[in-house]
Amino acid sequence: MWSSDLKVAEIIAVGSELLLGGRTDTNSVFLADLLAQQGIEVRFKSVVGDSVEDIGVVVKQAACRADLVLLTGGLGPTVDDLTREAVARVTGRPLRQRVQALRAIKASLASRGGTPTSFQLRQAAIPAGARVLPNPAGIAPGFALEWRGCLVIVLPGVPHEAKQLFTEVVLPMLAEKVGLREPADRRILHTFGLTESAVDQRLRSLFTQGKHIRLGVLASPLGVTISLTSWGQSLGGSGSSGPRKAATGQDRLVEKIRRRLHGYIFAEGQDSMEEVIGRTLTARGLTLSLAESCTGGLIVHRLTQVPGSSAYVERGVVCYSNRAKMELLGVKEKDLMNYGAVSSQVAGAMARGIRSRSRTDLGLSVTGIAGPSGGSPQKPVGLVYVGLATGRGCFTQEYRFHGDRSFIKLRASQGALDVVRRWLPVGIAKGK
Amino acid sequence: MWSSDLKVAEIIAVGSELLLGGRTDTNSVFLADLLAQQGIEVRFKSVVGDSVEDIGVVVKQAACRADLVLLTGGLGPTVDDLTREAVARVTGRPLRQRVQALRAIKASLASRGGTPTSFQLRQAAIPAGARVLPNPAGIAPGFALEWRGCLVIVLPGVPHEAKQLFTEVVLPMLAEKVGLREPADRRILHTFGLTESAVDQRLRSLFTQGKHIRLGVLASPLGVTISLTSWGQSLGGSGSSGPRKAATGQDRLVEKIRRRLHGYIFAEGQDSMEEVIGRTLTARGLTLSLAESCTGGLIVHRLTQVPGSSAYVERGVVCYSNRAKMELLGVKEKDLMNYGAVSSQVAGAMARGIRSRSRTDLGLSVTGIAGPSGGSPQKPVGLVYVGLATGRGCFTQEYRFHGDRSFIKLRASQGALDVVRRWLPVGIAKGK
Repeated sequence: MWSSDLKVAEIIAVGSELLLGGRTDTNSVFLADLLAQQGIEVRFKSVVGDSVEDIGVVVKQAACRADLVLLTGGLGPTVDDLTREAVARVTGRPLRQRVQALRAIKASLASRGGTPTSFQLRQAAIPAGARVLPNPAGIAPGFALEWRGCLVIVLPGVPHEAKQLFTEVVLPMLAEKVGLREPADRRILHTFGLTESAVDQRLRSLFTQGKHIRLGVLASPLGVTISLTSWGQSLGGSGSSGPRKAATGQDRLVEKIRRRLHGYIFAEGQDSMEEVIGRTLTARGLTLSLAESCTGGLIVHRLTQVPGSSAYVERGVVCYSNRAKMELLGVKEKDLMNYGAVSSQVAGAMARGIRSRSRTDLGLSVTGIAGPSGGSPQKPVGLVYVGLATGRGCFTQEYRFHGDRSFIKLRASQGALDVVRRWLPVGIAKGK
Repeated sequence: MWSSDLKVAEIIAVGSELLLGGRTDTNSVFLADLLAQQGIEVRFKSVVGDSVEDIGVVVKQAACRADLVLLTGGLGPTVDDLTREAVARVTGRPLRQRVQALRAIKASLASRGGTPTSFQLRQAAIPAGARVLPNPAGIAPGFALEWRGCLVIVLPGVPHEAKQLFTEVVLPMLAEKVGLREPADRRILHTFGLTESAVDQRLRSLFTQGKHIRLGVLASPLGVTISLTSWGQSLGGSGSSGPRKAATGQDRLVEKIRRRLHGYIFAEGQDSMEEVIGRTLTARGLTLSLAESCTGGLIVHRLTQVPGSSAYVERGVVCYSNRAKMELLGVKEKDLMNYGAVSSQVAGAMARGIRSRSRTDLGLSVTGIAGPSGGSPQKPVGLVYVGLATGRGCFTQEYRFHGDRSFIKLRASQGALDVVRRWLPVGIAKGK
């Protein structure tokens, strides 16, 4: 049907709310990642509003420079859902009520105990000649068609629907049509505790070594991430030795980076800090409880995003007030008076208190000043203390972060989890 | 310097990590919103990787269809920060070390007690003739230049830096150069408790009434949002009566929507559920404590994102285990045995327990099954109970959500806060 040589993809997110605020496009993140695993590189992304004309402009432009164009959004039942119409117009394929689409919509609604309204039935109108892609997680079906030598695929905008439809329907279709291709070799190393400039200085002399490897250094509240990407198809130029050679070069480079950033790398690949800690706690049979002040529940929220976390997260308490710190954790009033709630001493007392009261192996605490108010010259906004109580004693760590309230909360949560990560291998054992 | 008629803007986010996953572009959301307040409409957004060639392609394309092009990202000190070079090349303005930029970089580092490295000094290289925009919140300065009748502005990628530079430096510059323009009239109504189709059915007959008003209906885990936008410049066509007429029409339309969605609208404009609840609690002098199971701390995290929340959030506990529910909330073992942890009875006991132990006016609880495992035919994944204990008694609410773990957590947190919102006006008073 279409060219079997899909190298370059473009993703188009449709929706005025993506332009005007109220929603950010998250679909393109997992789509780009899944495409990279198929060796298909996303070179551009576009966002466009709910306008038949504007959608047409970006689809045309994408078809000029990409082999695969993925649209998400604008397939709903409301009057501002215009993707079907826009794709029909720009490709010159009029909309047709399709039996397969109708059947899929009715089946999907029946499973939720409903029948389609006349507006929902409009979702069965698909451009002529397009392949209907039934939606396994929702109502609106997607579709795929070939246009100007380019494969155009349209997915719903709801993230879990887009993900499931892409994974279960589109990926097998791509594999069947174009065959399996060498995936992009992508390595990601996540660090915490070094600035972007510090990472850059440690690695700079390595950056010229891997010419076929694209390097990226990215700072975020969660730390500095280093990425190395080599594309199977665009490497070497002459036959199959290219990718393999680059892969070996990439292995060596990753090994060198690991040595230069030793101790700061908390995860590799798609792993997050909370997943790494969850796996380590599970493997060692350890349980954890939390006492949060300035992070306000963010740490326990992050830990409990991981399926299965109920096995090691026994409880968490958010103690904003001094009274809650005394009642729930047994922090002494004189420590709060003498050192203040934001102090190494109180962080330690909070960690020991939550550990002993919950009878877990580890107790983790955070106290700090997230701002915007509450700071002083001695204790500025961004000052954060972390306490970790274990059977072998209690460690505390002081951090100073810069940024707004949500930035400081996020960075403090990461800093607290990093204390657990660093002490887990050496200082903590079950029942000690 | 440039055309004083800035109507259409395009935002370009630069960074391979935005294409490949690892980060989503959030800058364009607040930039689009701030531009709309100036009457400037963002019609397109693009995302492009760290490639001099690709950045050039999108800058050229944007300059063809927009009056204002805003780039964010790629101004850092590392080898993959290529925005300066790409803009210099595509516009034909070679990079020059600029005294003003150098001074800004040194001053910014000095305030953090540092001196610039040779790599950081490269950040002072700005295209010839461009206006340097010192960064009030970070190191890398931005810049602005005119090219092909279009104003091109380059900002750093770090969100709080981009926001502060845009607000403090770019907006006054725009106002000074182009004069004050009529802002877009944008109304947003946030609902919870109705599906997108149900909102659409209630409002459909209104959608044809406001021809000059762009309507949007958007579903997310936080509810269904309705937006109405009318653009001052593109309306009416004949002079100043256009916008005013549309604004009056918009007022009438908003009033009709409010009536048709009565009881479901929890906020308007940029307000979030947690801000609305925070303001109401503050105004009535009420305090709140939380007992979370399946939401894992997300509710208290969301509430404490709001500055000043320590005045009404007294404490929160995350009770994953039955033991924690009994110890921290006084839930009876026989209730856990008879009804199960996920039940209306236990939700009520949790809410009463946290309220009485923390001595707050309100106690809010959530218990449910976030999945992916733990469901049964009687109690499927997505079943959630909310309890709200007040001086006038305890209310419980059952919800059934569909989606993955993080979707269910988010929706359950919103559902719980919505229970507070709905009962606050009628059922709850201080000290009763």
